[in-house]
Amino acid sequence: MEKHVFLKEIVAFLKDELIDVYGDPQSIIVKHLRDPEHVDEFTLDWINPGKPEKQKIAETSKAKAIVVDKDVVFSEVLRNQGKVLLVATNPKLAIAKAGNEFFVEKVTPGIHPTAVIHPDAQIGKNVYIGPNAIIEKCVIGDDSIIDANVHIYSSVIMGKHCTVKSGAVLGGMGFGFEKDESGNLFRFPQIGNLFIGEYVEIGANTCIDRGALSDTVIGDYCKINNLCHIAHNNKIGMNVVITAQVNISGSNVIEDDVWIAPNATIRGWIRIGKSATIGMGAVVTKDIPAGETWVGNPARKLEK
Amino acid sequence: MEKHVFLKEIVAFLKDELIDVYGDPQSIIVKHLRDPEHVDEFTLDWINPGKPEKQKIAETSKAKAIVVDKDVVFSEVLRNQGKVLLVATNPKLAIAKAGNEFFVEKVTPGIHPTAVIHPDAQIGKNVYIGPNAIIEKCVIGDDSIIDANVHIYSSVIMGKHCTVKSGAVLGGMGFGFEKDESGNLFRFPQIGNLFIGEYVEIGANTCIDRGALSDTVIGDYCKINNLCHIAHNNKIGMNVVITAQVNISGSNVIEDDVWIAPNATIRGWIRIGKSATIGMGAVVTKDIPAGETWVGNPARKLEK
Amino acid sequence: MEKHVFLKEIVAFLKDELIDVYGDPQSIIVKHLRDPEHVDEFTLDWINPGKPEKQKIAETSKAKAIVVDKDVVFSEVLRNQGKVLLVATNPKLAIAKAGNEFFVEKVTPGIHPTAVIHPDAQIGKNVYIGPNAIIEKCVIGDDSIIDANVHIYSSVIMGKHCTVKSGAVLGGMGFGFEKDESGNLFRFPQIGNLFIGEYVEIGANTCIDRGALSDTVIGDYCKINNLCHIAHNNKIGMNVVITAQVNISGSNVIEDDVWIAPNATIRGWIRIGKSATIGMGAVVTKDIPAGETWVGNPARKLEK
Repeated sequence: MEKHVFLKEIVAFLKDELIDVYGDPQSIIVKHLRDPEHVDEFTLDWINPGKPEKQKIAETSKAKAIVVDKDVVFSEVLRNQGKVLLVATNPKLAIAKAGNEFFVEKVTPGIHPTAVIHPDAQIGKNVYIGPNAIIEKCVIGDDSIIDANVHIYSSVIMGKHCTVKSGAVLGGMGFGFEKDESGNLFRFPQIGNLFIGEYVEIGANTCIDRGALSDTVIGDYCKINNLCHIAHNNKIGMNVVITAQVNISGSNVIEDDVWIAPNATIRGWIRIGKSATIGMGAVVTKDIPAGETWVGNPARKLEK
Repeated sequence: MEKHVFLKEIVAFLKDELIDVYGDPQSIIVKHLRDPEHVDEFTLDWINPGKPEKQKIAETSKAKAIVVDKDVVFSEVLRNQGKVLLVATNPKLAIAKAGNEFFVEKVTPGIHPTAVIHPDAQIGKNVYIGPNAIIEKCVIGDDSIIDANVHIYSSVIMGKHCTVKSGAVLGGMGFGFEKDESGNLFRFPQIGNLFIGEYVEIGANTCIDRGALSDTVIGDYCKINNLCHIAHNNKIGMNVVITAQVNISGSNVIEDDVWIAPNATIRGWIRIGKSATIGMGAVVTKDIPAGETWVGNPARKLEK
Repeated sequence: MEKHVFLKEIVAFLKDELIDVYGDPQSIIVKHLRDPEHVDEFTLDWINPGKPEKQKIAETSKAKAIVVDKDVVFSEVLRNQGKVLLVATNPKLAIAKAGNEFFVEKVTPGIHPTAVIHPDAQIGKNVYIGPNAIIEKCVIGDDSIIDANVHIYSSVIMGKHCTVKSGAVLGGMGFGFEKDESGNLFRFPQIGNLFIGEYVEIGANTCIDRGALSDTVIGDYCKINNLCHIAHNNKIGMNVVITAQVNISGSNVIEDDVWIAPNATIRGWIRIGKSATIGMGAVVTKDIPAGETWVGNPARKLEK
């Protein structure tokens, strides 16, 4: 399973990320990425710009090739060690791009024979659909990955380059009831759609409901982790990060670049402003203005 | 997919809900239900009784047919617009009933060929069982809908008219352990049943465990949303609303008409009195008397 | 389904658990375990050592055979009732062992024909794999039970005697992103393994992610309940109890014998010391020293 990649290939691939390359990548082979404790001579190492003593980390790393920011200089020590420095604007992004290109097993497009696909489903090009996935008469964009056991209802219109992890349930009926004459709960119709943008990622066993009379909308580049619940009629902007087990009740507006920490709960019918941050386990009962951070139960603005 | 329904059919269907009908429904065609922002001339519109300025909403609606309560009068304006008012005791219930009858795709009973069904399972009439559902030697009442990937263990006895959404796991072993002589955790037997009443709805990826030595019981008309956990031995009454990601530890008694908001957590061995309300993200550690509202972590009575 | 077991068989099976047996087990038949309210003459009853008035409970039990601790004496009353006392060091453990041996339906090893198994998966002896389970090129130890709809990725190395309940997703990609030049979120590689020890139990619809560059590790005898999320790179010790809907962010160290109550949330990059207890719904943002109990949002040490 281990790869053998010439460092020069990686350098070529990363050319838009790199400001400078010091040392000679010619004969260096890279076999893997590793966490700091397990770095060896075949690791493509990297140093997070936020760390203290980056120069020392570079000089003591066992790796031959290290992605760094421009604070790390190609010292005499590094030169004598025969190391290669790949100086990047954003080392974490550079290592992410190289890692995905060279060291992550690619998913091969195709539809697993056990998947249950509606004959009128509109499935784009280069889509992967995993074992036992259930795809109703929906739309799935090109280059998307639908993992095992996912259920996508006919209400779903999903863009390109999306990833849906195992067991997610997309576009099911929302939760709305009205008491009838006998005082028993009676279902309110749930007939809206669920629109999902491009480059959206949806975690394992996460549930996103279709709209009731309106639609549910998830913007481009949203990243949603495992076991989240997103109720009907939510309008969620772009690049919103929804971490694990977040619970979003119905009919909210969540603007671009909001970050929602694990297990936060958001009531319905509110607005979360652009780039707001919601803390771990926060219970949000009010609108949150753009850019603010709210934490606690009930959630309040974090001052400072 | 769009329907064409004569308004007079809807009026006839709703006859028990309607107090009065003003205007002439004869030639009006309804194609859909829509949220207020998207109402058009083919919408069966409705006005929530709690809204301000209901008369004005009716007079500015683009719809020809509007379900209202008796506060809205059939004014000169409405008459001249050629509108029809359907005056209902409960407009939301009326629109829900009409919506389900005319605008919601019905599930056709039948067992999907990929479902795995125990030969001795007792499955009622007009039951739908979706793709890849796993039905052990349990009892499922008439007119129930079991969606894709649901797993129902042999411990389950479920009544009529239930809906179980995708990925729910019903009647599995509860979580009980005792330390053995070596200090290692050892499973306590879980051999009780899970009784589910009639008209119960269970959300996607929700897990309800069978009893340990006793049984778990879910009363008629309970509505349980996605990603909930209900542990062994709970006795839950009728018309209890359990919203998304609620966590109910074992051996509680939850009386009729309790309402539990999203992501609330309830410890074991307590009693929640009739019609109590538990707030969003509340952490309930004590008995709650009937009719009270408790919120917070730990939950306390909400005064006022 | 009801069993007929001779009490003398149970006594023989429990010989290492029992200090004494009073009365004559010879002719007594046991058919089931039951909760206190439903005990009858065919029940193997037991009395929790923590209960008050244990002697009275024994003398009023309808059961012929009762597992007790040594505080309960074989009184004249018990003798005249023809009862048998099984005196155990730990009555709950004794009843658990007897219950599992005689009254719990055993799972028969075997691979269900609908399971999707990678040809190079390493599956041990006496393993059960349920319907629609998806087993990639992973390692599963002997005597393990993998229930329906479980998805185990190739990153997983699992020990012996594990139980994985329905719908769990093990070894999927973790949740890590970096903003790219356009400000859009871009996936960080997730290429570590997920190591699971022996006698581990994993609840229904629980998700445990593989490591990013490091590994995720779950120690022996850990018991994890339904709907939990365990992120990448966590190192979890032995006999850790993780109850339902617990949320553990990435890269923590959780030492042996920690107990985490339902719906608690733990941020990333912290250490929870040995035998610490985390309360229901607690939001843990800091290291917790060994043996301490922390509760609340944010979690604080519980004094007293």
